[in-house]
Amino acid sequence: MIVITKNSVSEERIAEIVHQIEKAGVQAHVSRGTDRTVIGIIGKAEPTLAEHLRQMKGVENVIKISKSYKLASRDFHPDDTIIEINGVKIGGEHLVIMGGPCAVETPEQIDEIARLVKAAGGQVLRGGAFKPRTGPYSFQGIGVEGLKMMAEAGRKHGLLTITEVMTPEYVDICSEYADILQVGTRNMQNFDLLRKLGTVKTPVLLKRGFSATYDEFLNAAEYILAGGNPNVMLCERGIRTFESYTRNTLDLAAIPVLQQLSHLPVISDPSHGTGRRELVEPMSKASVAAGANGLIIEMHTDPDNSMTGDGVQSLFPDQFANLLKELEQLGKLVGKRFETPKEPAEYFNTWIK
Amino acid sequence: MIVITKNSVSEERIAEIVHQIEKAGVQAHVSRGTDRTVIGIIGKAEPTLAEHLRQMKGVENVIKISKSYKLASRDFHPDDTIIEINGVKIGGEHLVIMGGPCAVETPEQIDEIARLVKAAGGQVLRGGAFKPRTGPYSFQGIGVEGLKMMAEAGRKHGLLTITEVMTPEYVDICSEYADILQVGTRNMQNFDLLRKLGTVKTPVLLKRGFSATYDEFLNAAEYILAGGNPNVMLCERGIRTFESYTRNTLDLAAIPVLQQLSHLPVISDPSHGTGRRELVEPMSKASVAAGANGLIIEMHTDPDNSMTGDGVQSLFPDQFANLLKELEQLGKLVGKRFETPKEPAEYFNTWIK
Amino acid sequence: MIVITKNSVSEERIAEIVHQIEKAGVQAHVSRGTDRTVIGIIGKAEPTLAEHLRQMKGVENVIKISKSYKLASRDFHPDDTIIEINGVKIGGEHLVIMGGPCAVETPEQIDEIARLVKAAGGQVLRGGAFKPRTGPYSFQGIGVEGLKMMAEAGRKHGLLTITEVMTPEYVDICSEYADILQVGTRNMQNFDLLRKLGTVKTPVLLKRGFSATYDEFLNAAEYILAGGNPNVMLCERGIRTFESYTRNTLDLAAIPVLQQLSHLPVISDPSHGTGRRELVEPMSKASVAAGANGLIIEMHTDPDNSMTGDGVQSLFPDQFANLLKELEQLGKLVGKRFETPKEPAEYFNTWIK
Amino acid sequence: MIVITKNSVSEERIAEIVHQIEKAGVQAHVSRGTDRTVIGIIGKAEPTLAEHLRQMKGVENVIKISKSYKLASRDFHPDDTIIEINGVKIGGEHLVIMGGPCAVETPEQIDEIARLVKAAGGQVLRGGAFKPRTGPYSFQGIGVEGLKMMAEAGRKHGLLTITEVMTPEYVDICSEYADILQVGTRNMQNFDLLRKLGTVKTPVLLKRGFSATYDEFLNAAEYILAGGNPNVMLCERGIRTFESYTRNTLDLAAIPVLQQLSHLPVISDPSHGTGRRELVEPMSKASVAAGANGLIIEMHTDPDNSMTGDGVQSLFPDQFANLLKELEQLGKLVGKRFETPKEPAEYFNTWIK
Repeated sequence: MIVITKNSVSEERIAEIVHQIEKAGVQAHVSRGTDRTVIGIIGKAEPTLAEHLRQMKGVENVIKISKSYKLASRDFHPDDTIIEINGVKIGGEHLVIMGGPCAVETPEQIDEIARLVKAAGGQVLRGGAFKPRTGPYSFQGIGVEGLKMMAEAGRKHGLLTITEVMTPEYVDICSEYADILQVGTRNMQNFDLLRKLGTVKTPVLLKRGFSATYDEFLNAAEYILAGGNPNVMLCERGIRTFESYTRNTLDLAAIPVLQQLSHLPVISDPSHGTGRRELVEPMSKASVAAGANGLIIEMHTDPDNSMTGDGVQSLFPDQFANLLKELEQLGKLVGKRFETPKEPAEYFNTWIK
Repeated sequence: MIVITKNSVSEERIAEIVHQIEKAGVQAHVSRGTDRTVIGIIGKAEPTLAEHLRQMKGVENVIKISKSYKLASRDFHPDDTIIEINGVKIGGEHLVIMGGPCAVETPEQIDEIARLVKAAGGQVLRGGAFKPRTGPYSFQGIGVEGLKMMAEAGRKHGLLTITEVMTPEYVDICSEYADILQVGTRNMQNFDLLRKLGTVKTPVLLKRGFSATYDEFLNAAEYILAGGNPNVMLCERGIRTFESYTRNTLDLAAIPVLQQLSHLPVISDPSHGTGRRELVEPMSKASVAAGANGLIIEMHTDPDNSMTGDGVQSLFPDQFANLLKELEQLGKLVGKRFETPKEPAEYFNTWIK
Repeated sequence: MIVITKNSVSEERIAEIVHQIEKAGVQAHVSRGTDRTVIGIIGKAEPTLAEHLRQMKGVENVIKISKSYKLASRDFHPDDTIIEINGVKIGGEHLVIMGGPCAVETPEQIDEIARLVKAAGGQVLRGGAFKPRTGPYSFQGIGVEGLKMMAEAGRKHGLLTITEVMTPEYVDICSEYADILQVGTRNMQNFDLLRKLGTVKTPVLLKRGFSATYDEFLNAAEYILAGGNPNVMLCERGIRTFESYTRNTLDLAAIPVLQQLSHLPVISDPSHGTGRRELVEPMSKASVAAGANGLIIEMHTDPDNSMTGDGVQSLFPDQFANLLKELEQLGKLVGKRFETPKEPAEYFNTWIK
Repeated sequence: MIVITKNSVSEERIAEIVHQIEKAGVQAHVSRGTDRTVIGIIGKAEPTLAEHLRQMKGVENVIKISKSYKLASRDFHPDDTIIEINGVKIGGEHLVIMGGPCAVETPEQIDEIARLVKAAGGQVLRGGAFKPRTGPYSFQGIGVEGLKMMAEAGRKHGLLTITEVMTPEYVDICSEYADILQVGTRNMQNFDLLRKLGTVKTPVLLKRGFSATYDEFLNAAEYILAGGNPNVMLCERGIRTFESYTRNTLDLAAIPVLQQLSHLPVISDPSHGTGRRELVEPMSKASVAAGANGLIIEMHTDPDNSMTGDGVQSLFPDQFANLLKELEQLGKLVGKRFETPKEPAEYFNTWIK
């Protein structure tokens, strides 16, 4: 940590700053420049020291050199974290594909989609039972019934399941039915939810807040890790920028950046990241080429009639299956293992429009 | 609502779109252009119709003409909402000043600050007991004890109190101790929290998400209003932009925009909106000149040693008192009523550094 | 300037970095922390040294402590710059009002508007002869004829004139006809244009690029100042953010920030900053309350028929005159001098719709 | 084009709007909703009509359905544009690699780098002679001498050359020495420069402004095309967002979006798009996977000592050569042709550190 003083600050003030640093049990190393004085802090300071120093008179800036997160940092944990759930490995050289509808609607809908996800080679079934919606009059999901339907479909077709949890009090019931809990973009800094997720062992897919920096994102993961749950995946799902043609701007550089800063698996969400069906395929390929450990993709058998309005970004099942075939080849070039079934084609013919 | 078709869509497809519109119980009005066909929808459609149509094949765009929120809209409620709490009026021609520390620290601290807020003319004491912090190792607030200390200080000095509530399960206890509940910027779309706040009558100050559009902001307010709590204030507290010199970019145009779109009071937060003490005074004045119904300002007797690190944006008590004197004059010019005590000066002398 | 090394860099590498610093004629002050080494640079380094060091292996970051601009900095020039043009003073305690149409259209149009600007108390007539337009098929301005019409109207009614110059080769002819040259937001980093403007003495109003940081903005001013032209005004005109309800987000904190960092006058443009007529009045007042040295406001006698489409953000003349009356009062409260004529009311009655 | 009126506008006002539409030679189709009236415009209107209508009283919004650019649109030109320069094809299924230093420094430097670019399989040598720099005291490029050095190096090693042109008066001399002219991000809306480039036939690589929307970007290309120069490539080079860890946010969705909207080749710049060497490789692969028609990559033999400070984002020559080998394989999977020489390895050994 470095403290930079304002122009021409008094010697008394510098002494006071040094005093505060030493009081915190670390050493101060003063370096006087022509304009400003720079004070380096040597030793492991409490995280609150930076905050304290920043607000002192005479201080222009405090620059943290060490990262504010620890358990999420690759400095702390050099090897890739690999999360294994019922034989499916997530992280490292493994490529995981999660597919399914925005929302669970009926038992028949989720069953058919689960069958198609499995047939195409996906390992995880996604589907929302509780939906975060901008306005109170939009469809809010079918709740616990949806959890049950999805759990049943996943069990039947041999898929893991992932669903979003929006509030601490639903963590337990969602954990009971789903294999992975998703924290949505709007809840990335819902700290009570993160704390609660730290108390369970269910793996968590943490979506980046649509305006969160990498540092804030990793600090959010740190809340879960610090609570005792080591099974966290990071998910880039697009950030909010001035460009409104796409729903969000999918920040693919986040993939290698997060993998350098952290050991946690990084998943890409090209569906929410673009909001347009025709962009899901190129952005899925680009995500894998950039090194993603997995993808979460919306797929629907009847996108025209999805209940949330997100059909516009959902792939048709044949698009989904063809994409997975291509990702299998692409993965080989960038060291990511993923296998699709040998013969899904005929099966898919039955429903292609 | 207007549906715009893609280039050269078939007549069959147009007929199908019209069919879906009529099935929803509203009328379709088809207008064929040289390139595209435009279908106007006449009548009151369900909010989900737009979502449904947007995802149909052949549809390029669906443009909503009516607003998605109703109870928050000035169309629905032409007169300004005025919230009255123990004789203090918020909204319309009244200017409300909320002041206090970022966090409640000790009984002595909050008592002294309350005395100073009152002496300067403020009507509401702010202070955090539960603090939302980017990282898990930062000071997280002192919790329920802080609520009690603040309630006591408010009662003693004749001030209303406002504090942040972060999760649904704390709404009841926070309501017990505080007069106004604050929803922080990171929780603006914590929908379970908003729904819970709709079930109480305690007034709510809803802060704009740092990347929320006006439309999303008003939809968040709509959740609370739709739940049955009509006492909502909107708070502009700065948005996240590319400029990092200031902590946020305080979007003052939000004040007149929100007042045109909605009847709810609009409060400005120049402390978080700028993150720098020296900008709080000019931005407070600018907020009042732009028509704000109130301000929420951080003030601390010992900013160098505030526990959250937000001292850097806190006014000293004399700055706070002088500012309120100036706002009293400025308010007169723009039709906002606010009165400061006749003789606070001597009192303030006792602690001025 | 401070160099921060990467984690566990070798002693040889540190020695090489120190060598490069000393080769540049300045001193290095090495401070070894637990993780990283910090090297302070003492003395006045060439601006290119930071760039050189940043790209060395083993260097994680280079932090500049001194500002990269000098002539634009208040450190260099503590007193406010006051630009005097034909008796009109811009800067310091003076409030200057520039008004007029987006584009000069006809001699009659600009003459009538000039008369109204003068009658309301404005000191400068604005009007575009060369218009920067997003697409090549939009109206591009009437060119040199427009310069002549505006010069004539300004002369007749006793107003200074300001017009936009878009390319170096037009600087001379624009200087011949106009009193102030405007650099538009899209040209803030048109460095050849800035260099050319440094070679003349005509005052320049430099608009902030819609995505320029304060630092980039002041560096753009530095180009003009370093070329030898000291007469530069800075203009905040709104930045591009995710919010699209307003045309731009008017960043009013820029006013006090720029006034702290620089001695140059700061003008606000609420017309482009909001893009909506109904927001011009509150944002004008807010700008003055925040300490602006002046305003540039679009006003048109027939906004429905303006040739650029910017009529939607133009005030009607009576709105303009009423606003200036209010700004006169507001200016008094914040130490800004501005006087409107005693009796403009009757005159304005003749055209009020 | 669609005009949406404000709530409860009078019949007289609607008639006046219709009158203005018909006066412009197109038809109006009025559709009365419960709240608002929608007026569709049928026929080819002048681009200025939208601007005119938008500013009329009673009009809430004007929505353009047709695009404002024509020559750049794929509607107008369904087949991919392929630009052929001395046998090198750019566009369609061809993948072009441009490599070289940020700035031309000496004849030896550019010669050696040209040799390495060629050996690795690159087809175009990049290098700046005129450099746009944020501040006036930074290295500004070596000017015309640099053009000559680069032309000589390109000729000797059988490479095309590309260099940046910053102002209209240098277009002719840059065209004389370089095969492709680059318009930098800060000049994307330097309309006089674009107009001048429309008058030559030299191919232009137009970089996206760092805050330009796709629509603005394509309109900037339209300026060049409308002037008579059909040889335009679009270059995504990162946009400015709130995230500052990377220099810019490389918006890879721009690649498929621009290819859908336009027929022009789309090039990606992962060097400026990330500003960090270690991200250039993954983002290069992701760009090709997303469908890019080419890449422009900074490469330097001595990045520690580049004169612009951009060494931090420059690849070393061996990284560059290895990357091109990988892109050759990746290109095959996504239908992009690109060949590297059979045996560059030994050559590269001579300088690898």
